[in-house]
Amino acid sequence: MLAEIITIGDEILIGQIVDTNSAWIAQELNKIGIRVKQISSVSDDRSHILKALAEAHNRAQIILITGGLGPTKDDITKRTLAEYFNVGFTENAEALENVQQLFKKYNRPLLEVNRLQAQIPENCEVILNKNGTAPGMWFNYDSRVYVSMPGVPFEMMYMMEDQVLPKLKASFKLPVIIHKTILTVGEGESFLAERIADIEDSLPSHIKLAYLPKLGQVRLRLSGYGDDEVLLQKELNSFADQLLFRVANVVVAEEDISLEKAILNKMEARGLTLSVAESCTGGYISHLFTQHPGSSNVFFGGTVSYSYELKESVLGVKNETLWQHGAVSLETVTEMVEGAILNFKSDYAIAVTGVAGPGGGTPDKPVGTVWIAVASATKTVTKKFTFGNKRLQNIERSAISALGMLNTLLREVEN
Amino acid sequence: MLAEIITIGDEILIGQIVDTNSAWIAQELNKIGIRVKQISSVSDDRSHILKALAEAHNRAQIILITGGLGPTKDDITKRTLAEYFNVGFTENAEALENVQQLFKKYNRPLLEVNRLQAQIPENCEVILNKNGTAPGMWFNYDSRVYVSMPGVPFEMMYMMEDQVLPKLKASFKLPVIIHKTILTVGEGESFLAERIADIEDSLPSHIKLAYLPKLGQVRLRLSGYGDDEVLLQKELNSFADQLLFRVANVVVAEEDISLEKAILNKMEARGLTLSVAESCTGGYISHLFTQHPGSSNVFFGGTVSYSYELKESVLGVKNETLWQHGAVSLETVTEMVEGAILNFKSDYAIAVTGVAGPGGGTPDKPVGTVWIAVASATKTVTKKFTFGNKRLQNIERSAISALGMLNTLLREVEN
Repeated sequence: MLAEIITIGDEILIGQIVDTNSAWIAQELNKIGIRVKQISSVSDDRSHILKALAEAHNRAQIILITGGLGPTKDDITKRTLAEYFNVGFTENAEALENVQQLFKKYNRPLLEVNRLQAQIPENCEVILNKNGTAPGMWFNYDSRVYVSMPGVPFEMMYMMEDQVLPKLKASFKLPVIIHKTILTVGEGESFLAERIADIEDSLPSHIKLAYLPKLGQVRLRLSGYGDDEVLLQKELNSFADQLLFRVANVVVAEEDISLEKAILNKMEARGLTLSVAESCTGGYISHLFTQHPGSSNVFFGGTVSYSYELKESVLGVKNETLWQHGAVSLETVTEMVEGAILNFKSDYAIAVTGVAGPGGGTPDKPVGTVWIAVASATKTVTKKFTFGNKRLQNIERSAISALGMLNTLLREVEN
Repeated sequence: MLAEIITIGDEILIGQIVDTNSAWIAQELNKIGIRVKQISSVSDDRSHILKALAEAHNRAQIILITGGLGPTKDDITKRTLAEYFNVGFTENAEALENVQQLFKKYNRPLLEVNRLQAQIPENCEVILNKNGTAPGMWFNYDSRVYVSMPGVPFEMMYMMEDQVLPKLKASFKLPVIIHKTILTVGEGESFLAERIADIEDSLPSHIKLAYLPKLGQVRLRLSGYGDDEVLLQKELNSFADQLLFRVANVVVAEEDISLEKAILNKMEARGLTLSVAESCTGGYISHLFTQHPGSSNVFFGGTVSYSYELKESVLGVKNETLWQHGAVSLETVTEMVEGAILNFKSDYAIAVTGVAGPGGGTPDKPVGTVWIAVASATKTVTKKFTFGNKRLQNIERSAISALGMLNTLLREVEN
């Protein structure tokens, strides 16, 4: 089953916003066995939209359209769709009620332009927009499904999850597809591939293995295709178990979550707490953790110690250590991580100090040199990394490497 | 002048990566007077690519293609382009030299697949890739320009800035376009619009004003179109000056940079230093600053104090303050910011404490309640905000609001 995504709106074409909707939609469609053939971004222009609709009609059975549904003059998606389908308009009672409720909730007078949002092409079914005033629209036309949704991400996402995806599943005979994701950290794609080559070779043709690498992490995703869901799940689990056993030392999670969330989950389940002493990562590791709800159950916080002074006063790094060995050294990172455990009273701690660049490098400590330490009350592990010369990449790589080291230390205690 | 962007590769169509390249390219093209008519993402499939090329040929004079230039079998952009142009291949000495140098630098043996990357269609001019092995390609064909570049963002960006954009400017008679951006913070789009309505109304038709809002900030962008660059610049400056004078109280920068970078610049120029005490922003403010090269000249660091204990031990917030007024209170945020100045020895400090959500709200301090303080040695300013119930948005809004308050405090001392 093939789909096409059409995004309508000048914001994307002038680069004012990045189109994150399409990637999200594509992922969700993939999960239920629908493949995206093309993504087209077109302008708020009648003839251009008509052309895009006609081209999509030739390529796909499912055409998902986002954007151009606002109340202002430049939003012409709805009337262009009516022209494409050659139909008139009708007022939809449910959509009107929805708009009225929204305006009532925010205590604003209902404007005529908003009332007009409840006018829809005669041939469509309304998809209620619980988060905004523009209704979504579902069209069956010439053996194809067209769905028009707002471009505002959370309005679109809610509609997709709540109504469009279930309706697509009900409308088409889609294959049963089951995914199982294993998150690993600290080993490159090609090394992993070598270690599991025999398992990969033994997969039946209806089960595929994908390597999804991202900055020090690799997600192994098994996707099974079939008719019998129960049987397929059983089969997939057995291959997943083989993979999990084989690469156990680098596995962080058996589900598709972020690395830091996996670590938070693991630590929370065991009642453990964590603090950080960040120098070159400058708050990025803290931000990774604290973006997740409930992180405060595990994460106490810590310090961003850019200056020598903060390393001394907050972490208790000795002045002579800093001057003898420098801020980027085994000795300093060790005192940082042990200072964090001591001062912040957490079970575990992470410390990072390095030269993120582009300035600050020296012959023996070039840009990209990073010392990382992880520690529990009884054990400290340190490691030196040599990354590249791109500041943001160095920050991200340092963070991921630190999380990988913490995962290893947590595993040691498990076993 | 119209352009089309074609991205090639299954990664985008399965939603594995978000296409950030296109937005960046569109922005850069806009700056030099080239408008993007359509963005199409297609799969690594010969006939699909050929179709997309033909369709783009009908719509645009400039066709920029990214992706599908890797050394593996699934990367077919190059040979499909040769088929489209109906030409053979030739080995390019410069491109080969580049690949060889790269492999030498990383001490890896040159594989045959990489040697093949120096094979290019006969009708193209090579665009050297200084950051990777796949050369870019420039084609003049049927009064149109086709440019093929790698999909790796930093390889593509370097090629665009270094070679493609200058070459486009030299190849086409493009209008003179000058932009001038004013960054403001702390006032909504519609309020700003009201304050500068008369200036906006007085703009000649060849100068446009755009409002680019983003999370508490609004960029005012004047774009002038004309033939005489010197004259146009003068005219634009005079309108910019009027705007700057009118909204001076909310202006952060007279160029298109990020809010935190503008503050770093301002503080560095005046030899001032900064530290932070972050609770609910959890390291995000520190990360904003430290992602910028040279931030250590201004930013000392600070603490991420999620727990009561860290607020006490590192910042010196009094135990009774926390228990009497709670962590999210005027009293606590004041002690936090003053503790930061005192303990971290910076000229200025920011403190933030709040309920980011989704949990942790109470009837009198619901999710979204955030106290922010900014301080110098002699003055402390505090403010309570009530944001919404989305955790990440609350974190970002808190950070932007804090930066806005710091900007105001810095301005007071200026004047």
